[in-house]
Amino acid sequence: MPVFTLLTDFGLDDYYVAAVKGVVLDRLDAAQRAAIQLVDIGHRVPPGDIETAAFLLSAAAPCFPAGTVHLAVVDPGVGSDRRMLAVARGGMRYVAPDNGLLTPLLDNADAVQAVDRPDLSRAAPGATFHGRDRFAPIAAALLGGTAIGALGPAIDDPVRSSNMPPQRGNNVLRGHIRHIDHYGNVVTDLPAAWFDPHPTALDVRIDGRPRLPLRFVDHYALLPRGGDIPGALIGSLGTLECSLNGESLARRWSVRRGATITVFLQAPSRPSRLSSSEETP
Amino acid sequence: MPVFTLLTDFGLDDYYVAAVKGVVLDRLDAAQRAAIQLVDIGHRVPPGDIETAAFLLSAAAPCFPAGTVHLAVVDPGVGSDRRMLAVARGGMRYVAPDNGLLTPLLDNADAVQAVDRPDLSRAAPGATFHGRDRFAPIAAALLGGTAIGALGPAIDDPVRSSNMPPQRGNNVLRGHIRHIDHYGNVVTDLPAAWFDPHPTALDVRIDGRPRLPLRFVDHYALLPRGGDIPGALIGSLGTLECSLNGESLARRWSVRRGATITVFLQAPSRPSRLSSSEETP
Amino acid sequence: MPVFTLLTDFGLDDYYVAAVKGVVLDRLDAAQRAAIQLVDIGHRVPPGDIETAAFLLSAAAPCFPAGTVHLAVVDPGVGSDRRMLAVARGGMRYVAPDNGLLTPLLDNADAVQAVDRPDLSRAAPGATFHGRDRFAPIAAALLGGTAIGALGPAIDDPVRSSNMPPQRGNNVLRGHIRHIDHYGNVVTDLPAAWFDPHPTALDVRIDGRPRLPLRFVDHYALLPRGGDIPGALIGSLGTLECSLNGESLARRWSVRRGATITVFLQAPSRPSRLSSSEETP
Repeated sequence: MPVFTLLTDFGLDDYYVAAVKGVVLDRLDAAQRAAIQLVDIGHRVPPGDIETAAFLLSAAAPCFPAGTVHLAVVDPGVGSDRRMLAVARGGMRYVAPDNGLLTPLLDNADAVQAVDRPDLSRAAPGATFHGRDRFAPIAAALLGGTAIGALGPAIDDPVRSSNMPPQRGNNVLRGHIRHIDHYGNVVTDLPAAWFDPHPTALDVRIDGRPRLPLRFVDHYALLPRGGDIPGALIGSLGTLECSLNGESLARRWSVRRGATITVFLQAPSRPSRLSSSEETP
Repeated sequence: MPVFTLLTDFGLDDYYVAAVKGVVLDRLDAAQRAAIQLVDIGHRVPPGDIETAAFLLSAAAPCFPAGTVHLAVVDPGVGSDRRMLAVARGGMRYVAPDNGLLTPLLDNADAVQAVDRPDLSRAAPGATFHGRDRFAPIAAALLGGTAIGALGPAIDDPVRSSNMPPQRGNNVLRGHIRHIDHYGNVVTDLPAAWFDPHPTALDVRIDGRPRLPLRFVDHYALLPRGGDIPGALIGSLGTLECSLNGESLARRWSVRRGATITVFLQAPSRPSRLSSSEETP
Repeated sequence: MPVFTLLTDFGLDDYYVAAVKGVVLDRLDAAQRAAIQLVDIGHRVPPGDIETAAFLLSAAAPCFPAGTVHLAVVDPGVGSDRRMLAVARGGMRYVAPDNGLLTPLLDNADAVQAVDRPDLSRAAPGATFHGRDRFAPIAAALLGGTAIGALGPAIDDPVRSSNMPPQRGNNVLRGHIRHIDHYGNVVTDLPAAWFDPHPTALDVRIDGRPRLPLRFVDHYALLPRGGDIPGALIGSLGTLECSLNGESLARRWSVRRGATITVFLQAPSRPSRLSSSEETP
């Protein structure tokens, strides 16, 4: 029996998340219901923030086993005629509104279908809670064995959010801040490979502000605790991350997701920088 | 194996929710433990707010499959001699303190029992955590197959919270604000049937304030995004809901749960209003 | 199949919690995956707050069934050469960084091992997310049947946080505030046995402030609601707790975890104090 994950902007103060899970469980038979694993990716996406949902889903999904069905409902267009998507990719299935949320998962997708199965919908008042009345039944159908091709026609024009890819120049890199995490770390889209060999230090510019010097380290604990020296490191998604040890760098810098970041690489003075693996051979 | 849901005011910063789940799992045998589904309805009910707990439970419960056991612990009288209730209704069982929390579920109940099974209680210090020491074992007993009638005597005087039902006059409706949801939507207790055929617009008065005009729509996205024009629509519980698109109407209006709402219906100028289902036949 | 619990300081806004669960599920075989129960202890530990994590884990763990595997990741030293611990105690297994988090569980432990199994680690970029890349695979190995002794060598020098035990004098007790709970109750480390027979009243001093009189009661509801009279009672962990009914005492008193508390016992004027169990024989 596959795993089911749920990502929404429903928050944690309401009955909405439980309602979606209740419908999914109600649509499964007893054996499926006993065997399924329900896992929350999160429900505190800022209301209507499709970009954040896309980031969180694409970051978490690769950790799950093949067969997992991921349902993501951040749906400011609920009730309108926006389409519903089902995507197969890498042995997993994804269900979401067709509003750009699945953009990071469309490349290399094995199937992209517009869901057209009104027979699955749950009879319910109002047109405001498609998470409960339409998306949950679709996810349950996939979990219960329905083939993705049976959900509706393949399409080639899913909505994509337009993220400019990062750019690489002569010792100057330009990208975007993709995420501010729970600790205030600043996650960029600049790939790790562009920092190989690792520099000892670099400068960054956020939007049009003055250049800021950063120390390049292996992990947070190599920065002095207390927070006066910001660092740059390769984060858990394989991209450049900027950080303070024990304090929120995002708050210190007053930066937000979406800002541009320009990185000025300095010529490495040594083949590599101080790292804990070198200290403890 | 049934589903188990949990609703509390324990918050998410403490060990209390995990302790209740731990006891439930500990009281089941290995096969039951492997097959049960634990689903949170929520734990951020404001401390001691029985009315909000009653609303969330009655809104979420109908989505779950038959056989589900719902445990709700919002219990400002913990340790006193308030009774503990077990209610059977519509194929599900509900366990909660006898303080009004189960009011919406008492009508059409198949059984209402005062639980009197001190033999089930968990030996533990203090008289402050009945969620862990008394309620969790009761829920586990129901999940494990104990009949509700074996929990204690049937009673006919459970505590009911006194909600005045909504009233219908000559083009004037009067009810209450039952809930402010995560998005700031204002959920009333005025039933959908009282808005059939749909008006194109209506006025509302919150408590004794001036009348406010609302546009009647099918779903949120038909309101201009950005939020200057409030709308009224039929929400996901089959009652009138007031909303802004992309902003919290509750904050804009400074309204709270429990306020009275008076709706002034205007004669519909057309048989129905603009709706997306009419736009896309 | 055992139960798996997870306690972190990852917060609820990020993909980190889901990533850890995804890896655990991915490392199990299909039958294990269907049967396991995943339970959150909590994820809102203040970032890097090892003491709070230790408190929550040791408070919740005893409620769970034998066989449970508890993973706790509050890891300000992530990426450094701090060790990873696996502890067996009372039929359960615990996995955490070796930073003091498991201190309350080290006494009476059946096994304390330093984990040294790089072969289990997940290949992933960066050295910042050991919860996902190292700890989740270790927990999954235990859940899948690996013996704790196979994880690495037994050690006798795990990091311990230095909590001075409470002290008992002649009608004067001295301890610490171990926790402020969700309701603002002030949880101390003074054991219930030191209040037997129960006094009717006592005075407390927080750090060096003036003495405050408290009424000793059985449960919160015996204090007048609304909050002017603070009470002392035996809380759910078997220690003295100070409380207001319906209001946060911690906020009223402006106290924080870690403060010292001195209790001045007064000679009981009666063999016991007013209690609800005496009122309702």
